[in-house]
Amino acid sequence: MKAIALVTLAAGLVTALPAAAQFQKPEDAIKYRKAAFTVMGAHFGRLGAMANGRVPFDAKAAADNAAVVSAMASLPWAAFGEGTDKGDTRAKPEIWKEMDKVKAGATKMQDEIAKLNAAAKAGNADQLKAAFGEAAKTCKACHDAYRKD
Amino acid sequence: MKAIALVTLAAGLVTALPAAAQFQKPEDAIKYRKAAFTVMGAHFGRLGAMANGRVPFDAKAAADNAAVVSAMASLPWAAFGEGTDKGDTRAKPEIWKEMDKVKAGATKMQDEIAKLNAAAKAGNADQLKAAFGEAAKTCKACHDAYRKD
Repeated sequence: MKAIALVTLAAGLVTALPAAAQFQKPEDAIKYRKAAFTVMGAHFGRLGAMANGRVPFDAKAAADNAAVVSAMASLPWAAFGEGTDKGDTRAKPEIWKEMDKVKAGATKMQDEIAKLNAAAKAGNADQLKAAFGEAAKTCKACHDAYRKD
Repeated sequence: MKAIALVTLAAGLVTALPAAAQFQKPEDAIKYRKAAFTVMGAHFGRLGAMANGRVPFDAKAAADNAAVVSAMASLPWAAFGEGTDKGDTRAKPEIWKEMDKVKAGATKMQDEIAKLNAAAKAGNADQLKAAFGEAAKTCKACHDAYRKD
């Protein structure tokens, strides 16, 4: 139920929080989106450690970490507004030229994370491993295309 | 249901994620806890704007923002482990000398945020305003005592 509720939440936020007027200054938006990615990445990494066998599978930890990843997955996108291409960011300028592709990638990512969340909630290590791999591909695709080294 | 699930999640994480061995390096923990506070603060600020009448009350936005605040409220504490007192942080050394008080403050904060979340979910602007004020006091208490200017 937790996982389902969080996925619902994540899906809801995409429409609930319009890109405009959420941040007072461009640097606030940059700081915020980086923070959301940092939190997401930390918990995604913990799932990866389980998926890849570096730490023992723990169903409760998997579900809790996946829930945090889900809660974060919808947040960063509203913070890629106009004027947030410059500053303390590794975001490539292509993001703002290809926003439709970026948004499609974000949607794909959220879809895969919903599956990851479901797998974690089911407590199935094999499903989690498979879902983690697919979710990780969506992270990598966007990083490769749109993030400076 | 969303809000309740997230509160359950938040409460669960306190026990689910032990402080030890979650971060490879102290600087990772510092970056993570700051990120969680940044995300929490952004969404808490949006609730404050509604609570203080700077923007019109919007029940759905209130519930969504409160859900994110709840999801974040349990996360930073595990990242105040040993060795994370030095580096890119405004945390005062008193934190590690008074960890029992810090944890009590964190628990109080989470309790008030659970009430804030309930008020937001109920869609009651007056309740939200009252709950926001109480929650904000718990933020301020810890910042005043334990955060450098």
